[in-house]
Amino acid sequence: MAWVDDDNASLLTDLYELTMAAAYLQDGFDHEVTFELWVRGLPPQRRFMVVAGLDTALSYLERLHFTPDALEYLDSERTFSADFLRYLADFGFAGTVHAMPEGTIAYPSEPLMRVTAPVIHAQLVETFLLNAVGFQTMIASKAARMYLAAQGRRFVDFGSRRAHGADAALKAARASYIGGAVASSLVLAGTVYGIPITGTMAHSFVLAHPDEESAFRSFARTFADDDIVFLIDTYDTVAGARIAAKVITDLASEDITVRAVRLDSGDLGDLAVRVRQILDDAGHTEVGIIASSGLDEHEVARLLDGGAPIDGFGIGTSMVTSDDAPSFDIVYKLVDDRGTPRYKASTGKVTLPGIKQVFRGPDGDVLALADESFDGHVPLLEPAMVAGKRVAAAPPLAEVRQRALDAIDALPDEATSLEPRTVDDWPVTVSSSLQHLADSTVPPN
Amino acid sequence: MAWVDDDNASLLTDLYELTMAAAYLQDGFDHEVTFELWVRGLPPQRRFMVVAGLDTALSYLERLHFTPDALEYLDSERTFSADFLRYLADFGFAGTVHAMPEGTIAYPSEPLMRVTAPVIHAQLVETFLLNAVGFQTMIASKAARMYLAAQGRRFVDFGSRRAHGADAALKAARASYIGGAVASSLVLAGTVYGIPITGTMAHSFVLAHPDEESAFRSFARTFADDDIVFLIDTYDTVAGARIAAKVITDLASEDITVRAVRLDSGDLGDLAVRVRQILDDAGHTEVGIIASSGLDEHEVARLLDGGAPIDGFGIGTSMVTSDDAPSFDIVYKLVDDRGTPRYKASTGKVTLPGIKQVFRGPDGDVLALADESFDGHVPLLEPAMVAGKRVAAAPPLAEVRQRALDAIDALPDEATSLEPRTVDDWPVTVSSSLQHLADSTVPPN
Repeated sequence: MAWVDDDNASLLTDLYELTMAAAYLQDGFDHEVTFELWVRGLPPQRRFMVVAGLDTALSYLERLHFTPDALEYLDSERTFSADFLRYLADFGFAGTVHAMPEGTIAYPSEPLMRVTAPVIHAQLVETFLLNAVGFQTMIASKAARMYLAAQGRRFVDFGSRRAHGADAALKAARASYIGGAVASSLVLAGTVYGIPITGTMAHSFVLAHPDEESAFRSFARTFADDDIVFLIDTYDTVAGARIAAKVITDLASEDITVRAVRLDSGDLGDLAVRVRQILDDAGHTEVGIIASSGLDEHEVARLLDGGAPIDGFGIGTSMVTSDDAPSFDIVYKLVDDRGTPRYKASTGKVTLPGIKQVFRGPDGDVLALADESFDGHVPLLEPAMVAGKRVAAAPPLAEVRQRALDAIDALPDEATSLEPRTVDDWPVTVSSSLQHLADSTVPPN
Repeated sequence: MAWVDDDNASLLTDLYELTMAAAYLQDGFDHEVTFELWVRGLPPQRRFMVVAGLDTALSYLERLHFTPDALEYLDSERTFSADFLRYLADFGFAGTVHAMPEGTIAYPSEPLMRVTAPVIHAQLVETFLLNAVGFQTMIASKAARMYLAAQGRRFVDFGSRRAHGADAALKAARASYIGGAVASSLVLAGTVYGIPITGTMAHSFVLAHPDEESAFRSFARTFADDDIVFLIDTYDTVAGARIAAKVITDLASEDITVRAVRLDSGDLGDLAVRVRQILDDAGHTEVGIIASSGLDEHEVARLLDGGAPIDGFGIGTSMVTSDDAPSFDIVYKLVDDRGTPRYKASTGKVTLPGIKQVFRGPDGDVLALADESFDGHVPLLEPAMVAGKRVAAAPPLAEVRQRALDAIDALPDEATSLEPRTVDDWPVTVSSSLQHLADSTVPPN
């Protein structure tokens, strides 16, 4: 089976990273450079980002190595010199990394990560860093929109089946947890990250039983002391609710508690009202209603704004694919070469030169040179790795999540809208020193 | 580092697959059922699918097992019975799988895969099968749009950095190769799948040298006998083309051949004309022009329709994220339980009951019951796995790709348009026997 793992992740790279590295080695280039990683812009409806993926990036950098198999493949594919293959055989990432901690709110043009390293080191890691930080930041940012839409209701990641492959399912569970999901249906996310896992039942389970009542009873009997949720829409939601109410009553006499029923089709707002009534009439006011079925943040907001008595949401495809923005325009660019600020002037893709820092203050962020300082402002890029080693263990995921939610809760109103921005401005100003450097840096040819 | 691998892929599942399995075991349900996997619908611009992901699905099914660590985690998370945990410890997938071979053209409502197995077996694999087949089919289908747009020009997968995590980068390289890409920039796709790999250089490489000329010379010297492509837009594309032309002339005297130059920004159509002229004036008519920069199928078609002298395309984000349709509405549903056709009647999500086959004929497909036959029609679902073992080794990837391209080349004109369909009909009819079964199957309650 073709899995990515610690031994082959070094080849999860565009070929040109390796061919450029070979050319650098041949020319004796081993001087220090700095690359920065940032998102160039966001689609109009996206008003902020929640940074995620740093842990994956740092784990990769710490473990990066080329196995004999990898070297043999490279040798067979291109005319890499023996010197270069020996260099790769001995390679370990020795650079310094500054980064925004996971869970930080960020805006376009702000470096999320800065890599200072010998040029070959900094170049070789480009593809993987963009992949890891870009994807996870995109999903955490999307989850934050669900968090805003859910207005305090719980929502759970149900998206694994529609995620883009296996790693995406796992990393999306983590990123959506950071962005506000309370749990994931993905069991692996529980084992790997300690994320709470949860689930209900599938229509096939109901269909495999003679009727809904026997399906519900079977499930409840098996998990008497766990979270029990009945799926009630396999045939007819209202009839299913009546059957569920009856079974719940019976189970109560056995001291078995059912947490909720789930609606997965139809007019969820209308059905929730009718199902709530049925449950309440049977005395089951404590039994919640969970809704799923292709929900996105707009539909969640619409249901709640319409007063639907829904207590929780299962969010799948839209969250784990970031369906309104399935990629971020994330880049990793050389900004300093041996102390000389560098930038790319290509049409429409101008970058700011120099080693930068983001300073967050009460009135917004200042994008500035790294050696500047601003009263009352906190630098967001923190040391994450020195000489190829993490400066600290990764913080607990629950702490990362809390950082994100505290920050989202503190956002100004205009940042919390789900609707498109009408003007493309961000709470970010460029410092005069950085602007001066940008104005005075001219292309070398 | 958190990777998915053969030992933990069994937990790449929604929790409910396991809780339902536990309930089935408790109730002594081990009878045979059949699930089918299909795409319910496609967005208007999508006119066909190219099936991919079967190899991943079968590899998973063959290797599926629960490790002691996995069982320990499950035991800690829910009240799974000792019986159930023992069942999982001994578990191996023992089902029968029919599937469309990878590279087959398919349409909505047609089963891409059919799993017949004891109910627990069939249920446990749902999440992974949907993830693998859904994602890879989506990407192969997107690549086929690029293939149609490129009108015979070569295009290459450049998308790894924007793919949704590590597995997506690898599987997207494979799926886009099936759908028509000639190569991938992803080195791992070469080692794992034998896909041709290719690459150029990054702007950072040019920026790290004193000027473009020295960057080009350094690169060409290092890879004298390989594919050499110069990136000419770091500062000014036209000036870069003149420098490239001069270096190419000089290198020719050293018997070093440069294959192409790459444009990665600006008005690609206009620049391609100007760069072509510069290369031709310098006698480099054999040096090609490769274009990249956020291209999708529409932009590729527009450039070529406008006569842009572009010889090849690097396609990144839009292809590996399937940006116009970042998920397919793919489902895996119970259709038969102990010989009784089953279906889900939920509002808006009605499924056809019964074990089905797709028969392809000269005038389109017939979706029918598996035991039907139609003159001049070929059944598309073929035996892929019996009693948990593949019936044959996976075909070579090049053969899969050729099957797909032959089929795309043979599509009728209306299926090859990149524009939205105006009517939602597919070249698929439902057989009268299947329709009769659907009409006569009533919900059990």
